[in-house]
Amino acid sequence: MNYPMIRYVLAWVLKVEGMLLALPVLVALIYGEKTEGLCYLGWMAVCLILGFLGSFRKPANTEIYQKDGFVAVALAWVVMSVFGAIPFMLTGEIPSFVDALFEIVSGFTTTGSSVLSDVEALSHVSLFWRSFSHWIGGMGVLVFILMLIPVKNGTQMNLMRAESPGPSVSKFVPRVRNTAILLYKIYIAMTAAQIVLLLISGMRGFDALCISFGSAGTGGFSVLNSGCASYTPLQQWIITVFVILFGVNFSFYYLVLCKKAGAAFGMQEVRAYILIVLASIGIITWNISSMYSGFPEALRQASFQVGSIITTTGYATTDFNLWPELSKYILVLLMFVGACAGSTGGGIKVSRILILFKTIRKELQSIAHPRSVKKIRMDGHPVEHEVLRSINVFFITYMVIFAISMLVISFDEFSMETNFTAVAATLNNIGPGMGDVGPMGNFGGYSMVSKAVLTFDMLAGRLELFPVLLLFCPSTWKKRG
Amino acid sequence: MNYPMIRYVLAWVLKVEGMLLALPVLVALIYGEKTEGLCYLGWMAVCLILGFLGSFRKPANTEIYQKDGFVAVALAWVVMSVFGAIPFMLTGEIPSFVDALFEIVSGFTTTGSSVLSDVEALSHVSLFWRSFSHWIGGMGVLVFILMLIPVKNGTQMNLMRAESPGPSVSKFVPRVRNTAILLYKIYIAMTAAQIVLLLISGMRGFDALCISFGSAGTGGFSVLNSGCASYTPLQQWIITVFVILFGVNFSFYYLVLCKKAGAAFGMQEVRAYILIVLASIGIITWNISSMYSGFPEALRQASFQVGSIITTTGYATTDFNLWPELSKYILVLLMFVGACAGSTGGGIKVSRILILFKTIRKELQSIAHPRSVKKIRMDGHPVEHEVLRSINVFFITYMVIFAISMLVISFDEFSMETNFTAVAATLNNIGPGMGDVGPMGNFGGYSMVSKAVLTFDMLAGRLELFPVLLLFCPSTWKKRG
Repeated sequence: MNYPMIRYVLAWVLKVEGMLLALPVLVALIYGEKTEGLCYLGWMAVCLILGFLGSFRKPANTEIYQKDGFVAVALAWVVMSVFGAIPFMLTGEIPSFVDALFEIVSGFTTTGSSVLSDVEALSHVSLFWRSFSHWIGGMGVLVFILMLIPVKNGTQMNLMRAESPGPSVSKFVPRVRNTAILLYKIYIAMTAAQIVLLLISGMRGFDALCISFGSAGTGGFSVLNSGCASYTPLQQWIITVFVILFGVNFSFYYLVLCKKAGAAFGMQEVRAYILIVLASIGIITWNISSMYSGFPEALRQASFQVGSIITTTGYATTDFNLWPELSKYILVLLMFVGACAGSTGGGIKVSRILILFKTIRKELQSIAHPRSVKKIRMDGHPVEHEVLRSINVFFITYMVIFAISMLVISFDEFSMETNFTAVAATLNNIGPGMGDVGPMGNFGGYSMVSKAVLTFDMLAGRLELFPVLLLFCPSTWKKRG
Repeated sequence: MNYPMIRYVLAWVLKVEGMLLALPVLVALIYGEKTEGLCYLGWMAVCLILGFLGSFRKPANTEIYQKDGFVAVALAWVVMSVFGAIPFMLTGEIPSFVDALFEIVSGFTTTGSSVLSDVEALSHVSLFWRSFSHWIGGMGVLVFILMLIPVKNGTQMNLMRAESPGPSVSKFVPRVRNTAILLYKIYIAMTAAQIVLLLISGMRGFDALCISFGSAGTGGFSVLNSGCASYTPLQQWIITVFVILFGVNFSFYYLVLCKKAGAAFGMQEVRAYILIVLASIGIITWNISSMYSGFPEALRQASFQVGSIITTTGYATTDFNLWPELSKYILVLLMFVGACAGSTGGGIKVSRILILFKTIRKELQSIAHPRSVKKIRMDGHPVEHEVLRSINVFFITYMVIFAISMLVISFDEFSMETNFTAVAATLNNIGPGMGDVGPMGNFGGYSMVSKAVLTFDMLAGRLELFPVLLLFCPSTWKKRG
């Protein structure tokens, strides 16, 4: 393992995190929150100093192999989270380390699950840092850093592969620096558009900023105890549309910008995603119509919740915990489906689900007509064997982590519904679950051990399981000839 | 497709079912249940006549390919179930066809889920037919019929492959007639041993017979409303030991009989199975100890329920629905794990679970050391690629059927726990679930549509998904050049 290079990458992570902490400090200045501001400023200095010291000497060998890449990415997220959690403790707002870590991992992984019952008690600085962490985590920190540090091309690929969401089914991967820059431009432009629209609709500036960060990263931390329920219907619709847009595969926007709209709208994953969203909204609107004042409100509530859950954002405008079982179950299904690959959303991803269905169809065909077996195709191209295998393994690993996590948190004696959706909400980076961890509840009731497990699930979900698992593998740390 | 051959096989199924119906008729004679006896006798005649008419002319071409084999097996189970359900309707004890079909499918698939709230109201004849169907379904009807009708060797294999449980990981498959006969001998001898022991322990003859049939087939229909709760501790222990024995891979007994005890006790699947059973009993005994009068009772309750659930039998001696969440969740996990492959039990099967874990380990190793990838091994032999692939596809299909079934039954507005475990209990051929379908509840509250879906799940679970799915595939019925 190339330890000097891993040290170098981690130092860069600290340096960048230090710079990003400048924004909450700015917020402190604006709102005159002196004590909190000083805490963040001091900690920013620590990060910067450690970062500069660690990255002072560039390693002679910048090459990183697959394993090193996975380990570096996993450690980068751990370091970023541990250092991101400390400010909450310094200000005294979240005194326990496990709680603070849970909260910031929930932020960076764009989950949005919280241990806090009263978020309005937080300072503006900390509220901002929470929401801003969604925005940072949404596009991936390593991709950002890779644009800054010049390394060998293979190294970049090995790091990106470990951090970017979804199976690389389409040929489009942020292979080169220019593509990465273009993706960031799209991300920033869309976030800005949402902020502007929310401001025009009359939302408070601070809320518009935080809510847009949470939408862009598909995070879900809100700044009010009521979530998004107290915003106007227009504002709720704006959020609905934007979260759904952020759940689309960014290749779609890339293709549109490259004037390949035909190819963009032909993407099977995007079409399936839109279809699932519309079908879910339709069924739920019908199912919950009697609970609300009329069709427009039912439609709005259904659309907001469906958009929020399938993109794994996790905002809520109503306590969907009280919805009929059918609607609740559809939301749970959407939690697993997740957004498109190549978006900021989590979950299993629509493209994987599509391929899983195609795998079943192919199996049945091969039983019926053993001699005429066709390859599985996606967007017209045959899917390579290696991709299929990795999707199968992903799915299996996912289920095993799910089952074991639920076993551990069952010791806390919450109901099966609560435990099941707590794991679903964290492993899929959603935010709220059902029962005691529903949109009006929080994760504060779980024991320290359970919180640690759920924190692990959030990281595993965000980094697509294997980088984080690798940290726990003895053979990773063994030397090989 | 070889339609004449499928017709011939189905006719044989009816003929055999007609003969098997002689036993309930005998029970009617013993208990003097005249009306019920006449119903069963009349229906027996119908089955025999249709069976003899259909199998009168043997097809010229007895060859069956893989697809025909799958379709024949699936249709055989459907025909057997439909004809097995009618007696319940004729006696008027279960007037609705959907209910009667649910009950007998639950019997043949060795599930043990019931729509009845008062089983003691049934006649002895019907109680016997219910329990006897477990014993018939346990070892597979087709395997039995194949010993009777002489067909080409390839045909036998193609039918057996579709009916026998578990991935054929070990080389041991009932390849030849002699093996099948030996397996039946083991099955019959173990059933007889249980009947004798229960009689010695003082159990009523009728109960001993029915309970042993349910244990051998890992079914779970009981003859008392209290399940097995009113039997003495000794009787409960006898049942516990026997269900666990029936959940062992029958290759184990085969090897022991062939004086290869070393190989038998070296079977990884059997060792893992025993380990899981012991660990679960240990944790649950500790977890529930405060609910019972002392350690011996807690141990007995834990052992009985663990044995009953992991082997997918489904008997209960206590309302485990009232147990703490941890114990409940362990039982739910065991529902999915299931018994050993090559036993009469259902579920995913221990060997598949083992291979899934090995797949994850291999994936992690291949990330860490891409150049030194080893094959997955089971009992010392490398597992072939085709077996691995089929296990992955099985797992995926299993999860998809699970999710869709749950979606459909969610329309009935039972709680998520009830719906989740209702699907788990039927797809894994267990019997009781949690919540409203717990050991003291039943499936009678579900709508006709939900019952149909759960009936499908039971069949799909027993035949390992693909044969039943194939019936619903348009391409199965299409002609190919």
